[in-house]
Amino acid sequence: MKFSAERATLLKALAHIQSVAEKRNTIPILANVLIQANGQQLSLKATDMEIEVVEQVPATIMREGSSTAPAAVLYEIVRKLPDGVAVELDQADSDGPLHLRAGRYTTRLNVLPVDDFPSMGTGEFPHTFQVQSSVLRALIDRTRFAISTEETRYYLNGIYLHVTDVDGEAKLRAVATDGHRLARMETDMPEGAAQMPGVIIPRKTINELRKLVDEAPEEVAVALSETRIQFTAGPITLTSKLIDGTFPEYERVIPRGNTRVLRVGKKEFSNAVARVAAISQERSRPVKLALEPGLLTLSASSAEQGVAKEELDDSTVSYDSEALEIGFQARYLNDITDQVENEAEFIFADSASPTIVRDVSTPSALYVLMPMRV
Amino acid sequence: MKFSAERATLLKALAHIQSVAEKRNTIPILANVLIQANGQQLSLKATDMEIEVVEQVPATIMREGSSTAPAAVLYEIVRKLPDGVAVELDQADSDGPLHLRAGRYTTRLNVLPVDDFPSMGTGEFPHTFQVQSSVLRALIDRTRFAISTEETRYYLNGIYLHVTDVDGEAKLRAVATDGHRLARMETDMPEGAAQMPGVIIPRKTINELRKLVDEAPEEVAVALSETRIQFTAGPITLTSKLIDGTFPEYERVIPRGNTRVLRVGKKEFSNAVARVAAISQERSRPVKLALEPGLLTLSASSAEQGVAKEELDDSTVSYDSEALEIGFQARYLNDITDQVENEAEFIFADSASPTIVRDVSTPSALYVLMPMRV
Repeated sequence: MKFSAERATLLKALAHIQSVAEKRNTIPILANVLIQANGQQLSLKATDMEIEVVEQVPATIMREGSSTAPAAVLYEIVRKLPDGVAVELDQADSDGPLHLRAGRYTTRLNVLPVDDFPSMGTGEFPHTFQVQSSVLRALIDRTRFAISTEETRYYLNGIYLHVTDVDGEAKLRAVATDGHRLARMETDMPEGAAQMPGVIIPRKTINELRKLVDEAPEEVAVALSETRIQFTAGPITLTSKLIDGTFPEYERVIPRGNTRVLRVGKKEFSNAVARVAAISQERSRPVKLALEPGLLTLSASSAEQGVAKEELDDSTVSYDSEALEIGFQARYLNDITDQVENEAEFIFADSASPTIVRDVSTPSALYVLMPMRV
Repeated sequence: MKFSAERATLLKALAHIQSVAEKRNTIPILANVLIQANGQQLSLKATDMEIEVVEQVPATIMREGSSTAPAAVLYEIVRKLPDGVAVELDQADSDGPLHLRAGRYTTRLNVLPVDDFPSMGTGEFPHTFQVQSSVLRALIDRTRFAISTEETRYYLNGIYLHVTDVDGEAKLRAVATDGHRLARMETDMPEGAAQMPGVIIPRKTINELRKLVDEAPEEVAVALSETRIQFTAGPITLTSKLIDGTFPEYERVIPRGNTRVLRVGKKEFSNAVARVAAISQERSRPVKLALEPGLLTLSASSAEQGVAKEELDDSTVSYDSEALEIGFQARYLNDITDQVENEAEFIFADSASPTIVRDVSTPSALYVLMPMRV
């Protein structure tokens, strides 16, 4: 195998690749990238046996063949080469070392046998559809923060993607919850998704996908089966196993009868939360919201440090129901308001019941937040 | 006590103060800032019993008095207040809580008794001189990286500042060493420093001082005794205990007989070091320099990953002594070349002896580096 590629092109691909390759060295081959040069096509591949990423890279191929190399080392080397340089990779025979040359810089890299590189085995994908990159980004961003990190509740360790009917219209929905809060975002169902099963996409896959979305072309192709999902964004294909579990019937925790409506400017609200929460360094500090018509008083206290309080009046607050006091974790409030553009709408029942939060400018997003006793 | 100060002014002072206040809560009062409002003068003070920082802050004082408050919490609160707001601090009676008000935001902060706030006790400072901020910055930057972190060799855990005679000229010198490398930087002796004792300034003091230097006025006032040093930079006074130990006779480790001279472009050299070192992820990986007239070959190897090599030729390298092979820790080479402006000069004896490194454009700086066997 022998080829030459431009340093910046190779670097960009290796950045994607090395982030999927295993960092822990328990199975050495999983720390390697599989390099395949066929025809005029160079492809790089990494896997941790849960996710597999393959990227096509423009290159001039002088001799076809395949090799493997430690992904992190190759990435570090290429990153430190001067911009604009041509990088040549050359393996004379399949047992021998891999040589990298760039100007007067050379390496001799030890390789592992290509045949040892594992394949995740993808099978058939009966369901395929296209989704706009911007829509995919919104589906992820609006829900990802609520993914549970509790390993015992493995069926909550991802985003539940499924098709549902909303008032007679077919929607593609993303949902995540950790039992304390729930985030739901939807978009019009893309053509081809009608028969897809509901699937739980693992957190690591979501995080890798999110990184690719920013560089993706306008549309991303999605293909899935009961056990696998595959995203193709331009030259990159990301394939992942799905979480083998049943996502809870989340609709049952979305309250229907809440009636007390608060609207508040996102910036004013989240700044006030940050300021009152600054009184306490506990991670799960509660912030109390005390509501009366035209006035929201936020407060927090710490046995050690004292009490902090801020009032937001009708210049930014709209509320005309009966008075209410309710507490939430500051961090959970921030996670949600981070996703709100300009104005947040809270819909309360009472101080002990789940609260609905919406972004006034994004009706397709919905959040549910459990209160804390304060 | 009652006063009002502009948020940005207060924030800047609290940033300096809270960085000295103890983060670990073993002695609660050390986590507090002492606030003193006297006449038209507001001062903030923090100490960890090794370092004490006092800052004068412009403020409108409505009622004189003193108080204490948790430094980190106060800093966090002021940081999150909107820019331009006036911050009022008000303690009605000396046992009661401290109230902070800014617009519609208020806190009630628990305080600790002012009398419990410890004083480091500074004593007399028989030696005082002025030094330019830019010179102080250079003295720190060119030597700080070589400070030892070995706690058992406490007398190396700082920068040794002293006056010495160089070819009949009095110089103020900063020296640091960890036994593997030594860094020495000097400047013309300032007026008033002639009789000062040699002192070892602890690392934490150096780091706090370095932060202040960038914001300092043109000159910093230095005052010192056998046991204390004090820096005054505009409204800020930093006082520190000195390390009670004897700095080794460092001149004995600076070789006098080295003759083989290599000059090399700093950027080309440090990039090449980074690239060949990328082959190995060990922290103390050695890089080998192989020299022959007009050619420097850098190389590094890793049993696992392979070998990397880069040649620098006479377009950037000047060397005309006999061939030599010598190895250094990549990290140590980088620490020194980070301090070199354009061209580095290495002066070698042989592959087992200490090497001198100089910045061609800064003759007042000198570095000594111990080789590693490669």
